[in-house]
Amino acid sequence: MAEKQVPKVLARELVAKSRFLRIESVDLEFSNGELRQYERVQGRGRGAVLIVPMLDDDTMLLVREYAAGLHNYQLGFPKGLIDPGETPAEAANRELREEIGYGAGELTEMKSVTMAPAFFSASMTLFLGRGLYPETLLGDEPEPLEIVPWKVDQLDELLLQHDFTEARSVAALLLMQRWLQRGGG
Amino acid sequence: MAEKQVPKVLARELVAKSRFLRIESVDLEFSNGELRQYERVQGRGRGAVLIVPMLDDDTMLLVREYAAGLHNYQLGFPKGLIDPGETPAEAANRELREEIGYGAGELTEMKSVTMAPAFFSASMTLFLGRGLYPETLLGDEPEPLEIVPWKVDQLDELLLQHDFTEARSVAALLLMQRWLQRGGG
Repeated sequence: MAEKQVPKVLARELVAKSRFLRIESVDLEFSNGELRQYERVQGRGRGAVLIVPMLDDDTMLLVREYAAGLHNYQLGFPKGLIDPGETPAEAANRELREEIGYGAGELTEMKSVTMAPAFFSASMTLFLGRGLYPETLLGDEPEPLEIVPWKVDQLDELLLQHDFTEARSVAALLLMQRWLQRGGG
Repeated sequence: MAEKQVPKVLARELVAKSRFLRIESVDLEFSNGELRQYERVQGRGRGAVLIVPMLDDDTMLLVREYAAGLHNYQLGFPKGLIDPGETPAEAANRELREEIGYGAGELTEMKSVTMAPAFFSASMTLFLGRGLYPETLLGDEPEPLEIVPWKVDQLDELLLQHDFTEARSVAALLLMQRWLQRGGG
């Protein structure tokens, strides 16, 4: 299929800036001549990773962590930003050691996803982590994360948990299930 | 499981503001005494909806739409913000009419998801839409969206598409598949 012609960027302006986010406004001309002004968040470009760690074939490890946006504790898979100089797999292995105290002998990339591509450019690589071995690395978490083992055959119950909501964790969970169902490995 | 005690909010400050986003910094004290300053985006609180519209039991309808954050065209399911006074289902039916020119006789709520709960409070309700009937409503899109029918039995190919990346669309796709596999209806 032919790529559609992207709108022409007529002007860009930084309209707001905080320690972590930079918001710019973009004046666009669509290929049909329509003009629009959109806002978007300028990314730092390094991306992020999220890992579904399998303690064994039947057991995933999740973490329960404070989420400032919602101001409550959320259940999800270990994740984090890629540090300068790291590959996504290296970042994944570091986050696992920091957040759950395991390294992964095997990391399988399942898919790269975005968050809300109308506003953000950030992408996140979803991994399946297997062959776990105990290894701890001190992270910058304000408090130890609660580690929550969960059986794969209780996936329905996980989807119904009121604190398991992040779309990227939901996507990773269901991609992992597809991968297991195909006898991947 | 007992709810964990959420950190105490010692101070909040608006640090950046644009037409659409408000960023605040929050001084937090965790229950172990650790102090942290986080940034988060203040939500508008109304939430959003995304719909997997089924033209028939074998065919989904997707849209290809310009995404300013990535500055390219992305394939995904119809979605949008809930307008003041609308229920999520009303918003879903409006978005379907605006984006693909169909109403849905039946909307099934699959799950509510969040985007990145460390930063955002926004939540999105994922619907399955069936019993489609032609009905168009004029939206505020700058150009007509490209409507892309996709066969359910080509779900693997969809997951591999380089422009099908949004985690919320991936989650909705796989939730829809689980729903069909159970003979839901």
